[in-house]
Amino acid sequence: MRGVMKAAAAPGAVLAEVPMPQPARNEVLIRIRATTICGTDLHIYKWDPWAQSRIRPPMVFGHELAGEVVEVGSDVTTVQVGDYVSAETHIVCGYCYQCRTGASHICRNVEIIGVDRSGCFAEYIAVPASNVWKNDPALPPALAAAQEPFGNAVHTAMATNLTTRNVLVTGCGPIGLFAIGIAHAAGAHHIFATDVNPNRLELARTMGATHPLNSQEDVVRSILDVTDGEGVDVLLEMSGHPSAIDQGFRALRYGGFASLLGLPPNGLPDFDLANHIVFKGATVYGVSGRKMFETWYQTRAFVATGKVDLRPIITHHLPLEEFETAFELMLKGEAAKVALYPHGLDGAW
Amino acid sequence: MRGVMKAAAAPGAVLAEVPMPQPARNEVLIRIRATTICGTDLHIYKWDPWAQSRIRPPMVFGHELAGEVVEVGSDVTTVQVGDYVSAETHIVCGYCYQCRTGASHICRNVEIIGVDRSGCFAEYIAVPASNVWKNDPALPPALAAAQEPFGNAVHTAMATNLTTRNVLVTGCGPIGLFAIGIAHAAGAHHIFATDVNPNRLELARTMGATHPLNSQEDVVRSILDVTDGEGVDVLLEMSGHPSAIDQGFRALRYGGFASLLGLPPNGLPDFDLANHIVFKGATVYGVSGRKMFETWYQTRAFVATGKVDLRPIITHHLPLEEFETAFELMLKGEAAKVALYPHGLDGAW
Amino acid sequence: MRGVMKAAAAPGAVLAEVPMPQPARNEVLIRIRATTICGTDLHIYKWDPWAQSRIRPPMVFGHELAGEVVEVGSDVTTVQVGDYVSAETHIVCGYCYQCRTGASHICRNVEIIGVDRSGCFAEYIAVPASNVWKNDPALPPALAAAQEPFGNAVHTAMATNLTTRNVLVTGCGPIGLFAIGIAHAAGAHHIFATDVNPNRLELARTMGATHPLNSQEDVVRSILDVTDGEGVDVLLEMSGHPSAIDQGFRALRYGGFASLLGLPPNGLPDFDLANHIVFKGATVYGVSGRKMFETWYQTRAFVATGKVDLRPIITHHLPLEEFETAFELMLKGEAAKVALYPHGLDGAW
Amino acid sequence: MRGVMKAAAAPGAVLAEVPMPQPARNEVLIRIRATTICGTDLHIYKWDPWAQSRIRPPMVFGHELAGEVVEVGSDVTTVQVGDYVSAETHIVCGYCYQCRTGASHICRNVEIIGVDRSGCFAEYIAVPASNVWKNDPALPPALAAAQEPFGNAVHTAMATNLTTRNVLVTGCGPIGLFAIGIAHAAGAHHIFATDVNPNRLELARTMGATHPLNSQEDVVRSILDVTDGEGVDVLLEMSGHPSAIDQGFRALRYGGFASLLGLPPNGLPDFDLANHIVFKGATVYGVSGRKMFETWYQTRAFVATGKVDLRPIITHHLPLEEFETAFELMLKGEAAKVALYPHGLDGAW
Repeated sequence: MRGVMKAAAAPGAVLAEVPMPQPARNEVLIRIRATTICGTDLHIYKWDPWAQSRIRPPMVFGHELAGEVVEVGSDVTTVQVGDYVSAETHIVCGYCYQCRTGASHICRNVEIIGVDRSGCFAEYIAVPASNVWKNDPALPPALAAAQEPFGNAVHTAMATNLTTRNVLVTGCGPIGLFAIGIAHAAGAHHIFATDVNPNRLELARTMGATHPLNSQEDVVRSILDVTDGEGVDVLLEMSGHPSAIDQGFRALRYGGFASLLGLPPNGLPDFDLANHIVFKGATVYGVSGRKMFETWYQTRAFVATGKVDLRPIITHHLPLEEFETAFELMLKGEAAKVALYPHGLDGAW
Repeated sequence: MRGVMKAAAAPGAVLAEVPMPQPARNEVLIRIRATTICGTDLHIYKWDPWAQSRIRPPMVFGHELAGEVVEVGSDVTTVQVGDYVSAETHIVCGYCYQCRTGASHICRNVEIIGVDRSGCFAEYIAVPASNVWKNDPALPPALAAAQEPFGNAVHTAMATNLTTRNVLVTGCGPIGLFAIGIAHAAGAHHIFATDVNPNRLELARTMGATHPLNSQEDVVRSILDVTDGEGVDVLLEMSGHPSAIDQGFRALRYGGFASLLGLPPNGLPDFDLANHIVFKGATVYGVSGRKMFETWYQTRAFVATGKVDLRPIITHHLPLEEFETAFELMLKGEAAKVALYPHGLDGAW
Repeated sequence: MRGVMKAAAAPGAVLAEVPMPQPARNEVLIRIRATTICGTDLHIYKWDPWAQSRIRPPMVFGHELAGEVVEVGSDVTTVQVGDYVSAETHIVCGYCYQCRTGASHICRNVEIIGVDRSGCFAEYIAVPASNVWKNDPALPPALAAAQEPFGNAVHTAMATNLTTRNVLVTGCGPIGLFAIGIAHAAGAHHIFATDVNPNRLELARTMGATHPLNSQEDVVRSILDVTDGEGVDVLLEMSGHPSAIDQGFRALRYGGFASLLGLPPNGLPDFDLANHIVFKGATVYGVSGRKMFETWYQTRAFVATGKVDLRPIITHHLPLEEFETAFELMLKGEAAKVALYPHGLDGAW
Repeated sequence: MRGVMKAAAAPGAVLAEVPMPQPARNEVLIRIRATTICGTDLHIYKWDPWAQSRIRPPMVFGHELAGEVVEVGSDVTTVQVGDYVSAETHIVCGYCYQCRTGASHICRNVEIIGVDRSGCFAEYIAVPASNVWKNDPALPPALAAAQEPFGNAVHTAMATNLTTRNVLVTGCGPIGLFAIGIAHAAGAHHIFATDVNPNRLELARTMGATHPLNSQEDVVRSILDVTDGEGVDVLLEMSGHPSAIDQGFRALRYGGFASLLGLPPNGLPDFDLANHIVFKGATVYGVSGRKMFETWYQTRAFVATGKVDLRPIITHHLPLEEFETAFELMLKGEAAKVALYPHGLDGAW
């Protein structure tokens, strides 16, 4: 079959003929209908320091997927050939402390699809049956694939109750934009969103932000003005930028809740712990992956009800072989999220 | 009456004759039996930058107190003359968002006894009746006074359930030592405690630490060894030292809980947010003051049952007029906590 | 001034000339613009056993109100003449365990407006300043008054996170209808609502119920069919009817959450505790009053954003002197909720 | 091998020669060192209506066990021959909503060892590797087996934080007695315990109850007297008796927490929902099984630290062949809990 490979320890990727995956006894084989590109895939494509330290070429990468099950391993009882599925990307051990206490999203022995093992930028992929999520057949494949990154936003946003709360989303990349949609669907009151990119702020408004704000202006002042001097009840940090993190915590009210997904690439210089967390009586929660599988049930409800429309975020649809165009669109900031189709654009919009 | 005053904007303090406080309609007048010295009082005594920015001399300082009510204002119905009381130090507004939602410990308009208004290093003090906490007459006055700082430890430690958990207390000053006693009383499993001072580590063991550790050694390694490589379930950060905070988060298990009371004087250089909070799926809670008055009820239960014995932490008892000796003992690190008695050493041990 | 009085220990009420209330030092005097009628008022009007045991005639009753402050007591600093306000009905002591631990809605010494002291079916009322809630001047007075009972629904519904959850509201009286609106605004998935009255079920649909169900049919079967056999995540019990409570618990999924506001007048005969709660691993929360004042902040956000439109529930607007018509409309089930206006119908719709 | 069987649909049991279990690919074979008798086993032995409806003879019953692994199936990687283990009794499906959201203790497709499949009153048992819990080799086998029922008490008691709280345990059977030990180890304040049996109340005192109370006396009055009229913060209901449940809720303070494990055999006649839950603002949690495996980690910490000594509850140790004596001792109320040893009394005390 054909797959997009990181062939060597260098920037870029190639479309190559690779062996068809063989599902193990507990695995299923999925014929990919659509796969969406994640920021992680850009890191791998660009071959940045993180990718150099983690990825072992040659390998097919990609991890956001939807498709049909075409074969099941001999031990599989919960998935059938013909099921239309997505997949949780974290393959977890099931026996570490975290797995045995309902926190397998932070499994100590996790293996990640498209990072630690072969990914889904290909015609087929084999994944454990326990990682499979069944979809409504009516769900367009790009939306079905995008449930995985949308799930990161769901995990982040649903870490506290947003209904009636004033919410700030710092960073309007795809996951930030998803989080805005979630806050809107959850009945948040004021929804502030910050970014430097005017196109993204426009998308933020589309997703439901009541106050899209340029992060180079006095965001904290604007937020305090709207919130009677209190600040926001909830910070959803999606940027990883130290200055956005600082703004976010300054805009958080006393006793507020901060849910952190963004990763500062080089740590935080000069974090004001005393004022941002201690004096403020803040609660802070770190977000890794998706709760398995509470997040997926929530995700399905958001998507199935149409309460969050993910469509505006998936700005481009391309055949798998045009992957280079896709990566370039994303690197140039011209695309929010791109879907690739290994077997034709059926279901694209 | 006599009171220990910060007379001028300079280091030190003087014992002076000051006017007798007159209780307002909603206040009570307390004849002080004992007052204990807090780290905050040392800042004021030394006249450090924080004190210079906050304190307005001349004023009597001090805020940890116990004594008898000798007069009540005309509107007071809940406290009687003769009641033996301590006092919550935060005088709160009652109408800000925080006060109206059960979080008055982070009141936006708080006034702090001994910081923003006249304190208790004196023979008498007037405080609002709503700040009064009634004690069992059998409780020694130094213990009754020390309930206030003990309450900080209670708020920090009781922010999550410690029973059966592995706990790390970073920093063995008086509040860290109190927290160790609380963890022990709450049925924690392993209780790790770090400090550089061997005397404090010895006190840590007295209070119930199962593993007192010198923070200059490989604390993280030691903790992982004892906890099957998991790390601690709960971090109680009492030091405010950047390196201890870093150690604490590195020793925290995936999915762990960190309760932060210590204040880094100059912020945190180089905080590894991604690894310490985000990837770890950690929950972090900032601690300010005491929950009003849930913390006081918990405090009473710890002290009344004898489950935590505060006595080993109060190492010296002196008449009020020997306040300079008291401050010097604390500044030299020879005392853990010192009690001052304005009206004789009755009840000291 | 004129007021609607329970003049004697007997059914009915009279419009009488009563003394103008005089605000105490900590109280404010409010000129009532609108007052809405509660189920409790019907109990008093009908003089049922509960009313006979609790109400001490002669007294003006009524407790849901909105109006302008026309006088403030000498100690009042947080409310000004001219403020447009509603009032929390529970006057709490401030010093019991519940009040001192953030749970004053269950104060042990509570006094209820219009039940234990003079009410608001009158031209004016005096209430403590600490019970006052300030409104946006643009809010119609009947909506401002109805925030109090709406708050009961908010307290019930916001006891857990409803976003993406399947919710069942048993009982479509005004508070049940409000709860449906809240579940809808909070982004619930399926919203089931049960009642026997087709008009109320029609209103349920208006408020956002996706599945209004006649409680005399097989409600549990219908709910299981829609929820893949799981049942609802959340039960909001508003009826107090034993059979509805039984249906509600049977329709609750394993591990579900039940929030109970309805009061079975004669207890529950034959409650299946083992299957409804124990085996099910359910969590159940009893709702009394409104959280002071978290519920009011949430209420304001729902109403201010228009996310919940209370208008369809307030079906009639009458001058105060037509109170008998109002009570009859409600007793006959022809009205959902009726607003009375002591000083003209200004602001009615 | 030999096993204690329910041979026919009738009271009693027989010791019979039964086939040696063969572990499936994902199972392990355990050589039983000790097995303890549960109340459920008494129901099966007596052949009461519940047993008649659930048990399918002929089968070996029993489910509380400890022993050595002597064989592992071909897919097992997490357990080794020689491991000294206990077993979680619930064999769960892994794919229902509850299993996929961290609540497998209420799995919808659960199969229970010794109830739905062959049990451990025998020389050997085969169980899934994922149900295995590894023990410290130093733990006596009867204690290792008793961790399973102790876990029920842990799940019940650890549903809320007991530290500094006033706690009432209604019912002093083995699990109630365990719960008392847990409350004591967790630093509860007053620990009330009720039963009609004076021997059990004496054991309650041994386990740490500060106030063992005869449930035929005025328990509620006694509790209110000790708790300043408040009542207990936490009710742990272990009896299933309607009158004890009623007492328990009457003794619960406003805003309290009730954790319910006891099963009323015929439901609850006349439950006062309004006063017990609604007006009281209570939170109620139903307990089924043990959290998998959070409860087991907590259990290990209680037992390993010696904070709870289970020994006083295991009153008799007998060879497996004396099972009839064991059942009679329990039925007559002469034993709290009995341990049976299929391969000799090694490790008994």
